Amino acid sequence: MAEHTGLFDGVFSRGAAETGSHAWLRAMLDTEAALARALERAGLAPAGAGAAVTAAAATAHFDPGALGRRAALSGNPVPGLVAELRKAVPPGAADTVHRGATSQDIIDTAAMLLARGALDQLARDLAAAADGCAALAAAHRDTIMIGRTLLQQAVPITFGLVASGWLTSLDEAADTVSRVRAERLAVQFGGAAGTLAPLGADGPAVAGLLAQELGLALPVLPWHTDRSRVIDVAAACAAAAAALAKIARDVTLFAQSEVGEVREGGGGSGTGERRGGSSAMPHKQNPVAAIAILGCTRRVPGLVATLVAAAEQEHQRAAGAWHAEWEPFADLLRVTGSAAAWAAELTGGLVVDPARMRANLDATGGLPLAERVAGLLAPALGRAQAYELVARASAHAVAVGVTLREALLGVPELAGWLDGAGITGAQIDEALDPAGYLGSAGTFTDAALAAHARRSLPSATESV
Amino acid sequence: MAEHTGLFDGVFSRGAAETGSHAWLRAMLDTEAALARALERAGLAPAGAGAAVTAAAATAHFDPGALGRRAALSGNPVPGLVAELRKAVPPGAADTVHRGATSQDIIDTAAMLLARGALDQLARDLAAAADGCAALAAAHRDTIMIGRTLLQQAVPITFGLVASGWLTSLDEAADTVSRVRAERLAVQFGGAAGTLAPLGADGPAVAGLLAQELGLALPVLPWHTDRSRVIDVAAACAAAAAALAKIARDVTLFAQSEVGEVREGGGGSGTGERRGGSSAMPHKQNPVAAIAILGCTRRVPGLVATLVAAAEQEHQRAAGAWHAEWEPFADLLRVTGSAAAWAAELTGGLVVDPARMRANLDATGGLPLAERVAGLLAPALGRAQAYELVARASAHAVAVGVTLREALLGVPELAGWLDGAGITGAQIDEALDPAGYLGSAGTFTDAALAAHARRSLPSATESV
Amino acid sequence: MAEHTGLFDGVFSRGAAETGSHAWLRAMLDTEAALARALERAGLAPAGAGAAVTAAAATAHFDPGALGRRAALSGNPVPGLVAELRKAVPPGAADTVHRGATSQDIIDTAAMLLARGALDQLARDLAAAADGCAALAAAHRDTIMIGRTLLQQAVPITFGLVASGWLTSLDEAADTVSRVRAERLAVQFGGAAGTLAPLGADGPAVAGLLAQELGLALPVLPWHTDRSRVIDVAAACAAAAAALAKIARDVTLFAQSEVGEVREGGGGSGTGERRGGSSAMPHKQNPVAAIAILGCTRRVPGLVATLVAAAEQEHQRAAGAWHAEWEPFADLLRVTGSAAAWAAELTGGLVVDPARMRANLDATGGLPLAERVAGLLAPALGRAQAYELVARASAHAVAVGVTLREALLGVPELAGWLDGAGITGAQIDEALDPAGYLGSAGTFTDAALAAHARRSLPSATESV
Amino acid sequence: MAEHTGLFDGVFSRGAAETGSHAWLRAMLDTEAALARALERAGLAPAGAGAAVTAAAATAHFDPGALGRRAALSGNPVPGLVAELRKAVPPGAADTVHRGATSQDIIDTAAMLLARGALDQLARDLAAAADGCAALAAAHRDTIMIGRTLLQQAVPITFGLVASGWLTSLDEAADTVSRVRAERLAVQFGGAAGTLAPLGADGPAVAGLLAQELGLALPVLPWHTDRSRVIDVAAACAAAAAALAKIARDVTLFAQSEVGEVREGGGGSGTGERRGGSSAMPHKQNPVAAIAILGCTRRVPGLVATLVAAAEQEHQRAAGAWHAEWEPFADLLRVTGSAAAWAAELTGGLVVDPARMRANLDATGGLPLAERVAGLLAPALGRAQAYELVARASAHAVAVGVTLREALLGVPELAGWLDGAGITGAQIDEALDPAGYLGSAGTFTDAALAAHARRSLPSATESV
Repeated sequence: MAEHTGLFDGVFSRGAAETGSHAWLRAMLDTEAALARALERAGLAPAGAGAAVTAAAATAHFDPGALGRRAALSGNPVPGLVAELRKAVPPGAADTVHRGATSQDIIDTAAMLLARGALDQLARDLAAAADGCAALAAAHRDTIMIGRTLLQQAVPITFGLVASGWLTSLDEAADTVSRVRAERLAVQFGGAAGTLAPLGADGPAVAGLLAQELGLALPVLPWHTDRSRVIDVAAACAAAAAALAKIARDVTLFAQSEVGEVREGGGGSGTGERRGGSSAMPHKQNPVAAIAILGCTRRVPGLVATLVAAAEQEHQRAAGAWHAEWEPFADLLRVTGSAAAWAAELTGGLVVDPARMRANLDATGGLPLAERVAGLLAPALGRAQAYELVARASAHAVAVGVTLREALLGVPELAGWLDGAGITGAQIDEALDPAGYLGSAGTFTDAALAAHARRSLPSATESV
Repeated sequence: MAEHTGLFDGVFSRGAAETGSHAWLRAMLDTEAALARALERAGLAPAGAGAAVTAAAATAHFDPGALGRRAALSGNPVPGLVAELRKAVPPGAADTVHRGATSQDIIDTAAMLLARGALDQLARDLAAAADGCAALAAAHRDTIMIGRTLLQQAVPITFGLVASGWLTSLDEAADTVSRVRAERLAVQFGGAAGTLAPLGADGPAVAGLLAQELGLALPVLPWHTDRSRVIDVAAACAAAAAALAKIARDVTLFAQSEVGEVREGGGGSGTGERRGGSSAMPHKQNPVAAIAILGCTRRVPGLVATLVAAAEQEHQRAAGAWHAEWEPFADLLRVTGSAAAWAAELTGGLVVDPARMRANLDATGGLPLAERVAGLLAPALGRAQAYELVARASAHAVAVGVTLREALLGVPELAGWLDGAGITGAQIDEALDPAGYLGSAGTFTDAALAAHARRSLPSATESV
Repeated sequence: MAEHTGLFDGVFSRGAAETGSHAWLRAMLDTEAALARALERAGLAPAGAGAAVTAAAATAHFDPGALGRRAALSGNPVPGLVAELRKAVPPGAADTVHRGATSQDIIDTAAMLLARGALDQLARDLAAAADGCAALAAAHRDTIMIGRTLLQQAVPITFGLVASGWLTSLDEAADTVSRVRAERLAVQFGGAAGTLAPLGADGPAVAGLLAQELGLALPVLPWHTDRSRVIDVAAACAAAAAALAKIARDVTLFAQSEVGEVREGGGGSGTGERRGGSSAMPHKQNPVAAIAILGCTRRVPGLVATLVAAAEQEHQRAAGAWHAEWEPFADLLRVTGSAAAWAAELTGGLVVDPARMRANLDATGGLPLAERVAGLLAPALGRAQAYELVARASAHAVAVGVTLREALLGVPELAGWLDGAGITGAQIDEALDPAGYLGSAGTFTDAALAAHARRSLPSATESV
Repeated sequence: MAEHTGLFDGVFSRGAAETGSHAWLRAMLDTEAALARALERAGLAPAGAGAAVTAAAATAHFDPGALGRRAALSGNPVPGLVAELRKAVPPGAADTVHRGATSQDIIDTAAMLLARGALDQLARDLAAAADGCAALAAAHRDTIMIGRTLLQQAVPITFGLVASGWLTSLDEAADTVSRVRAERLAVQFGGAAGTLAPLGADGPAVAGLLAQELGLALPVLPWHTDRSRVIDVAAACAAAAAALAKIARDVTLFAQSEVGEVREGGGGSGTGERRGGSSAMPHKQNPVAAIAILGCTRRVPGLVATLVAAAEQEHQRAAGAWHAEWEPFADLLRVTGSAAAWAAELTGGLVVDPARMRANLDATGGLPLAERVAGLLAPALGRAQAYELVARASAHAVAVGVTLREALLGVPELAGWLDGAGITGAQIDEALDPAGYLGSAGTFTDAALAAHARRSLPSATESV
C-alpha cells in the first residue's frame, strides 16, 4: 500500500503505486536529473554535471509543503524546486539544472512517470483480479443459478458465465491499460514555447536522450498543448473502472442477506480483526472490498470529465486548464488503482454458495423456465397460442402460489391443451429442468477461459 | 492559508478554511464530544461523561494515517476512531462514547461542520472580492472601453459595467452560499438504520441537544440517505465558482499582451519576490491569480457531478455512493475556497489602464459605432437602406484601411447618400463618439452598486 | 406527455412540459412578441406594432429545421427567425421586430420561459409523488421491515420511515424548485453588449415592461454573461433528481424477486397492455417506472456538469460556452421532468407486501436484534462482555443455522452466562421482538407527515 | 449534413452521419433483418424468411414517435418494433423475427452500427481537418509569430509549429478513432440473459453469422453488461474533441480584433450570405466555425462522464444505467462529428495574416528575445548576472516605453556592462532577431508533416 497519511486512505489508496506529493516531487526530481544527464551526453553540460544533479536530486531534502506554498508565486511548484536544486548542486553544475526546460516540461514529464508506475501496478492488479475470476469461472462452469435482468429473476445461467463476463472485461481493460502504458507515455520537452530555442539545433537530440534516460517514448513534437496523452491515460482508467465497478456491483447484490449467493472472504488485514464485521450488528458481514471498489469507481466519471474538459488549452501554455489537471490526474490513478487492488483481493477470496444459488432459482417455482416451456409447445400450438397458454399458467402460478408445473398440469383447461398438443408431463418436467436450458453458458465460459489463458502465456514466458 | 503539505497547495488551497485529514478528524472528534455532552444533558450518560469525552477529544493524539489504514477493515475510519477515543477516556465514560450513533452519523455531521467553516470563509472571500469589484465599478463608472462578443470587438461599454457584472454575480453567489450555510447544514443522527432504537424514546431529544451543542440545524428526520444537503453545498460552490471563473477568464483576456487593459497587482506574497514574473521571460507579468482561479474552477464541474451522482443511495446506508462523497466534498470546498481567496486579492489589486482601453477601442476606426450610425440614418433612409449604406462604408473602411468616418464622408457615393438624407458631418462625428453610445451602462452600474450597498449594510451593522 | 417524435420518448419525455425545438421556437417568438408590445408601451414603436408582431408570432409558420440549418451562418437561429418574422408582419411593424435586442437576449429569455413551464410541471409532479409517499407513510407507519445498510440486513425499521424519508426529500426538492422558479427566472435584455445603447435612456424601462409582459423577474442588470440563473435551474433539477433517484433505487431493490417487498402498480397506459411484462419471460414484472426514473436521473450529473462548466463565459458574449448550454439545458429539464412524472405514478400506485417484509425480517433468525440483546445484557455483564456473548451466539446461530434465540438459550455455556446475569427467556423474547426496537421510527414518520401537511396547506388554500 | 429538424442543428449536427431517431430505427431494423438471415443460414428459419424480414424491414413504415410512446410499457422501444415487424412480414416468417434475441441485443447492436457510421465519418472529417492543418504548416513553416504562454507573449515561434501541433493531435485522434472502429465494434447477441438458451447449441453459430451479416466483430462472449465498448467509443470521441477544441480555442484567440492573426474563410454555405457577419455590427467577422466547435466540444466531458458512470450495470441487464446510455451515446457521436465537420471547413479555409503576426511580435519591443539576450551575456557575465542585467533592461523598457534594444544600449550603466563583457551592438541586434531564435520549430514542423504523409499513404493506395 502507498504511503498513508490520509484519513480515508484505507478505502481510496489501497493500490501500491504512489501518487501523492512525495511521488510527484520524486518524479520531478527524476526528470531534472535525467535532463542534466541528457545535456551532458549531448555535450551541453560540463562533465560530471549529470551525476552531480542526479546525486543532489536523490539525496537533498525538498519539502513539498514549502514548495507548495511557494507555488503561489508563479502558479506552479517548479521554479521553487529548481531554485532549491540549484542550491543543492556544486556551483559548476548549477547552470545545467533545468537548462532548456520550462516548468511544464517538468510537470508533464513527471505526470507521465507517475502514470507509468500507476498503470504498471494497475495492470498487475487487474491481472490478479482476472486470475481470480478465471478460477471462479473454471470452478463454477456448471454451477446453475438464476440470471437476473432489471433486478428480476429471468432465466437460468451459470455462475461460471457471470465470472466469465467479469474475466473478459478485466482482460480487455488490462489490454487497454497495457497499450496506453506502452504507446502513449512520452517525454514532454519543449522549453518556453515548444521550440527548445535555447538549445539551438540540439533540442531534438537532447529530447531523445531525455526520453532514453527516462524510458519514455519520444513524441513527434512537444505535446504541451496536445493533451491526448492525458486523456488516453484517463480513458484507460475509465475502462478499468468500468470492469471493476460491474463486478463490485454484482457482488454487493449477490451478497445481500436475502440473496446470499456469495460473500467476501475478508481476511488479509493482518490485524486479527475480521473485515466487514460490525460491532453494533454482529450478524453482519459487509462486503467491504466491493463497497470500497464502488466508492472508488463512482469518482471516476467526474475525474475523467475534468481531464477531458481540460484539454482545451490556449496557445503554447494554458491559463488554468493545464493546472486543473494535476490533482485530478493523480486522484484518478489513485482511486482506479485502489479499486483494482481491492478487486484482486475480492475475486481471489470470493466464497460462492451453489446451494443458495439453486435455492433462489427454485424459489420461483419454475417460472424462469416458462420461455422454454412455451418453446416446447410452439411447434404444436403455434407461437402465439403457446405463449398465451404459458402466460396464463404463469399468472395462475403466481396468483395461487403454486409452481409452474402444478399450474400447467393441475389446471384442467391448461392440462387439456397440453394433452391436445401431445405434450406429456415428462416433457414438461424436462423443459422445467434448468440444467437443460443453459444454452451456450458453458461454451462461452470455455471461450473466456481460453482467451484468458492465451493472454497469460506471454507474460509467463517473459518471467523466465 | 490552510495547513500546507501538498505540492500544489499554493494554487488549490489558498483559502483559510481547513479541509484536509486533520480537519476531518477534528470535526469527527467534535461530533463525538458533542454527542457525549448531549447524552449527559439528556440524562443518558453519567455526570461528567460529556466533559471527559470532550477533554479526551481535544487533547488525545489521533493519527489520521493510522486511522486511515484501519479504515480498510470496515470501510470507514470511525470504528477505529471510536476505539481509540474509548481508550482515551476514563472507564466510566467509555460507554458514553458514540452511544446510539453509527459511523455515518459521525462522518455526515463532520462533513456539515467542515462545510460550515468552509462556507463561512467562502462567504467572506466572496464579499471581499465583491468589495473589490464595487470599488472598480465606482472608479470606472465612466471609463469607456470596447465591448467584445464572441471575442470580437462589438460596441462600446464601460469598464464600470464589466465590474458591475462581476459584482452582481459575486453578490448573488454569496447570497446562495449564505442561504445554504444558514438553512441546510443539519446534524445527522439516526443510529444504525435511522430509528435511534438504542435510545428508545429519547432519540429525538438527544438529536436536538446534539444539534444545539454543534450549532447545526435539526432536520425533520435523519438524512443519512437523503443527500440533498450535500448537493445544496455543491450547488453553492458551483454558483460561486461560476462567478469567479467568469471574472478570471475576463482578466486573463484583458491582460493579454495585445490587449493590456488590466494587470494583476501581484504582491502580497511577503517573500519579496514578484508574483507572476518569469525568470526566463523577464517581460512577462502572468496573471497568476486569475490562472489559479481557473485552475480551481475547472475542477468544480467534475466534483459537482460526482456528488450529484452519489445521491442515488440504497436503503439505509449506501454501498459505495456514500463513500464516494468524502474526498470530493472536501476537494470541492477546498478549490472553491481557494478560488475565492485568490479573487479577493485579484479584484482588490487589479490595475486598470483606461488609456489602453481607449486605444483599443479607437483602433477599430469607429466601426463599433456603425450600428449607431445606421440608427442615425434609419429615419431618413429606412432601416434596410441605412444598414446597407453603413455596411458598404464599413466594408470599404476595412478593405482600404481607413476609419468609418473617412469611408462615410470620403467615398463620393456614400457621401452623396448622406447629403441626400440631410446628415451632416457633425452629426456623423457625434454618432461616432463612443461616449454618446453607452446606453444604460451608467444606470446599470449605479444599480449594481446600490444593490451591493444594501447587501453590505446588515453586516456592517452586525460588526458594531 | 410532451409532443413525441423520439424513439426513446416513452422513457425520457414522460413529463408534460415541452422542451423540444417547437417549444424553444414558441418561447423565442413569445419573447419577440412581448418585446414588440413593450416597445410600443414605451412609446418606441408605432401603435399597433405590438399587436401585429404578436399576431404574426402566433400564426405564421416557422420551420425549426429550416431555421436550424440557417443557424450555421451566424451560430444561432435567431437572425433567421427575426428575418422570417419581419417578413411576416406588416411593413410598419417590421422595424419594431427585435428592436434593441441581440440574439442572446432572445435565446436566454426563451430559456427562462422554457424553464418556467418545466419547473412548474416538475413542482406539480414532485408534489404528486410526495402525496403518494405521504399516503404510503401514513398507511405503513407501523409496518415492520428490516432496515438494510450496505445492502445487508441491519436492524428493524418501518416502511413508514422509508416512505417518510422519500417524502421529506421530495418536499425539500420541491421547495428548491419553487424557490428557483419564483426568484431566479429573469428576463435577459441587454442588446449587443449589455448597454441597450440603441434604446438610449429608455433601455431599463423597456426591460421592465418586457419583464412584465412575460411575467419574469427583472434583474439588477443584464445577465448575459452571469450564468448563475442557468446553474440555479440546474441545481434545482439536481436536487429533484437526487430525491427521485433514491426512491427509484430503493424500489428496484425492494422489488427484486428475492426480496419482493413492493411492486409497481403499473397500469395507466391506457393501451390495455400490462406495463413491465415480458413476453419472453411471462413471470416477470419489471419495475418500469423505477427503471425509467434511473435511466433519467443517471443523465443528470453529466448535464449539470456541462452547464456548470459553461459558466466561464468570455467578455460580453461567450464563444462556445454559451452555445453549449442550449441542448443540455433543455435535456436536463426534460429528463428531470420525466423522472418526476414517472415518480408520481410510481408512488401513487406502489403495492406494498407487509407479510413479505415480515418474512424477510424473520428469515435472519433474530440476528438483527442482536444489538438490542447486547443492550439488555450490558447492565449486568458490562458492555464489552455483553457484546462478546452476543457475538458468539450470533456466530453460532449462523454456523449451525439456528435462530439467535435458540443459540442464546440452547448453548449451555451461553445460557449459563444469561442465568448468571439474571436474564430470563421472557426477557430475551421481548428483546427479540422487532416491534419493541423501532426507536423513533413512528415519531419521525409523524414529523415528516406533519411537515408535508403544513407545506400542502397553502396550495390547498390557493386552489380555492 | 444529417437530417435536420432541430432548431440548433446548424451548430450541433453538421456532420454527415445520422444519429437521430430515424437512424436508430434503421439500425434496429437492420439488426433484426440480419438476424433473420443469420437464422436462415443456420437452418433455424424457413427458406426465404431472411429475405422476407429484410424486405419488410426495408420498406414497411415504422413511426419512431409511436414506438417511442409505446416504449413506456416495457422501458424500451424494441417490443413495439418487433410486434410491428411481425405484422409486416408474411405469416411464415413471423416466428423468425427476433428469434433468440432480447431487446438489449437489438439496441446494443444498433448502437454499434450507429457508431460505425459516425466514426467512419468522424475519421474522414478529422483527416480532412488534418490535411488543412498540413497545408497550413507547410505554407507557414517559416512564418514567424510570437508564442504565448498563459495568454502572455513569451518567445517567438512559427505558425507552422502551431499548425503542426494541431496536425499531430488530429492525426493521433484519427488513429484512435480508426482503432476503435476496427477493433471494438462488436455484435451483441445473448438472448434473455446471455446464454442464447432458446437456440440450444446453435447460439454461437448464429452469433457468428449475425456478425458476418452486419460486418461487426464477434466478441468472446455477449457483452451486454460489459460496457467497455461504449466507453471506448466515448474515449475516441473525447480524443477527437480534445484535438478539435484546442484548435478552435486557438482560432478564437488568434481572431480577436486586437490580435487579428487569422480569420475564418467562411463561405461554403451556399446561401449567398456571409457566414459570421453581424447585421447589427457590420464590422464583425465572427469565427463561427471555431465557436460552433467549442459549442460542441464543451458538451463532450459531461456526455463522456455519463457513459463512464453508466458502466456499473447490474447482473444480466441493468435497471436504468443501460437506458441512460442511449441518448447520450448518440449525442456524443453527433456533437463530436459536428465539431469535426466544422473543423474540416475551418482548417481548409483559414486565412493567415503573417504581417499582423510580425507586427504583434514587434509590438513588444524585443522583450520576447530577452531570454536569448541573457543567454548571449551569460558566458561573459555568468548566468545570474546576465539575467539580472536583462531583467533591469526589460523593466526599464517597459517603464519608459522603449524597446529592449534601446534600453540595453541607451542606458549608460547597462551599456557599460555590455561593453565590459565585450558584447557589441551588432551582437545585440542579432540576438534580437526572432528569426534566429526559433530553435527546432522548423524541424518539428517537418517531422509532423512527415508523420502525416506516412499516415496518408495507405489510404491513398486504398483509394486506387
